[in-house]
Amino acid sequence: MPDKARGAPVPVPDWASAFVLTASDRSAAGDRPDTAGRQVADRLHVLGFGRVEVRIVPDDRPIIEMALRDAAAEHALIVTTGGTGLTPRDVTPQATRAVIDHEVPGLAEAMRAEGRRHTPMADLSRGIAGVVGRSLVVNLPGSPRAALESLAAIETVLAHAIETLAGPYDHDTRPIRRAGGDTHDDPVDRDLEAGH
Amino acid sequence: MPDKARGAPVPVPDWASAFVLTASDRSAAGDRPDTAGRQVADRLHVLGFGRVEVRIVPDDRPIIEMALRDAAAEHALIVTTGGTGLTPRDVTPQATRAVIDHEVPGLAEAMRAEGRRHTPMADLSRGIAGVVGRSLVVNLPGSPRAALESLAAIETVLAHAIETLAGPYDHDTRPIRRAGGDTHDDPVDRDLEAGH
Amino acid sequence: MPDKARGAPVPVPDWASAFVLTASDRSAAGDRPDTAGRQVADRLHVLGFGRVEVRIVPDDRPIIEMALRDAAAEHALIVTTGGTGLTPRDVTPQATRAVIDHEVPGLAEAMRAEGRRHTPMADLSRGIAGVVGRSLVVNLPGSPRAALESLAAIETVLAHAIETLAGPYDHDTRPIRRAGGDTHDDPVDRDLEAGH
Repeated sequence: MPDKARGAPVPVPDWASAFVLTASDRSAAGDRPDTAGRQVADRLHVLGFGRVEVRIVPDDRPIIEMALRDAAAEHALIVTTGGTGLTPRDVTPQATRAVIDHEVPGLAEAMRAEGRRHTPMADLSRGIAGVVGRSLVVNLPGSPRAALESLAAIETVLAHAIETLAGPYDHDTRPIRRAGGDTHDDPVDRDLEAGH
Repeated sequence: MPDKARGAPVPVPDWASAFVLTASDRSAAGDRPDTAGRQVADRLHVLGFGRVEVRIVPDDRPIIEMALRDAAAEHALIVTTGGTGLTPRDVTPQATRAVIDHEVPGLAEAMRAEGRRHTPMADLSRGIAGVVGRSLVVNLPGSPRAALESLAAIETVLAHAIETLAGPYDHDTRPIRRAGGDTHDDPVDRDLEAGH
Repeated sequence: MPDKARGAPVPVPDWASAFVLTASDRSAAGDRPDTAGRQVADRLHVLGFGRVEVRIVPDDRPIIEMALRDAAAEHALIVTTGGTGLTPRDVTPQATRAVIDHEVPGLAEAMRAEGRRHTPMADLSRGIAGVVGRSLVVNLPGSPRAALESLAAIETVLAHAIETLAGPYDHDTRPIRRAGGDTHDDPVDRDLEAGH
């Protein structure tokens, strides 16, 4: 971990399920094992996700978009691998941008800042992160090592993000602070912490 | 301060006025004091702003957009607090994006990079920064501590940004270098510095 | 260089040509030498580009857009200098955004992260990077020193980016790993590296 402030990953709640979507023409055609997807799924299990589903699709934008929308209907976290590079077949970020309600730019910034410590090539990964309904979607690179390094950079905040998105929330009730909780945006929590 | 290059904040010109907009359903309803907004306003006074106005609005996108547009007509700097998180009521970045002429992405990157040194939760703040006419708009998180840490990360450049936006400028006259000046983009200034 | 992982710049293939576009009302009017453009062009020669063309245009968005489109038809890399600041005449990022197929956000993040080590003013540079067809476009600031510092932050990945964009690629054949190669996104290359 790069940063003293980052600390150990906080276990996600066991009700949370995750979806790993590998975008790869070769893996979809059965020409190549989906190493990155499998390793990311293994890591998500370790982090505490009670259910982790894996799917392989070709580098096809409409197919990826539909897969993301379907997954958002039932999973708290959607992690993609692959398709973040510079070739015309790398369309995962474009597909992701098309389905998200809004971006969470700090997650992609954090993944690339961490990746840059290992290889400058991390700067070429065009991955984004964002919210679709009550799900968080994160694009990881396609190389197994880079995918796991990028995931590691955001593991600590996954529990909080997932719990926040799950609610409950309304005009008067902000999400309750739970496991993993050092919240950043909610003034109530910080006020409580600070003794207000 | 994280970085030797960052140095002490440069005092802003005393003609500059600032507007602090707190987006919070609870504070707007009178259920909670606006600690973050008050502390940010205090800090802006210390930085040299001759006038600092504070307003509290609910987490309502049209209301925030209108408040931002109104404020841009008369303030050099608009700082928001709150509404940068992941719940459906967190709409400050969306409202900000709708009113800005263009983004200044480096300010948000710098705030999150600094925030990340204190807590990984900073990556979940979706704040952006941008230009509206001759005003700079910056989204800070809603927690008082996180808001002040984020503000600290950009204090050094506020004077230069405000003076640049204030003009005068036209096709032939770039803004003059003044207090706080080490300019980054203007080739004239750098040429002068470099002895050209 | 900021980072042990960054290492020495990898020479670009000699078939690659580069285009340096300086956006500056003053230089276009002949009132000021194009120091930044000339120094960036010199550096690109050193990096191995077989041909480097330079052009100066005023800070005019339609002119910049047209220049970018024209250049993308025949150059592997397009580097702009100037027009990334906060005045109304700073329109290079807007023009760039209008012509790119998609952004490569990590390059701009890396340039600003590196620039921030030298001066906090780097945060005010609104430069972006992206892909136009088979070309990579990168916005550098207008000051010669800042332009060269920003370029230095991405020199290591230029060869890989250019070779990737040049192809060949199709559904089944990802670009071959060549000089400079440590790829980040392509699972095949990493699998080979990892012994799969």
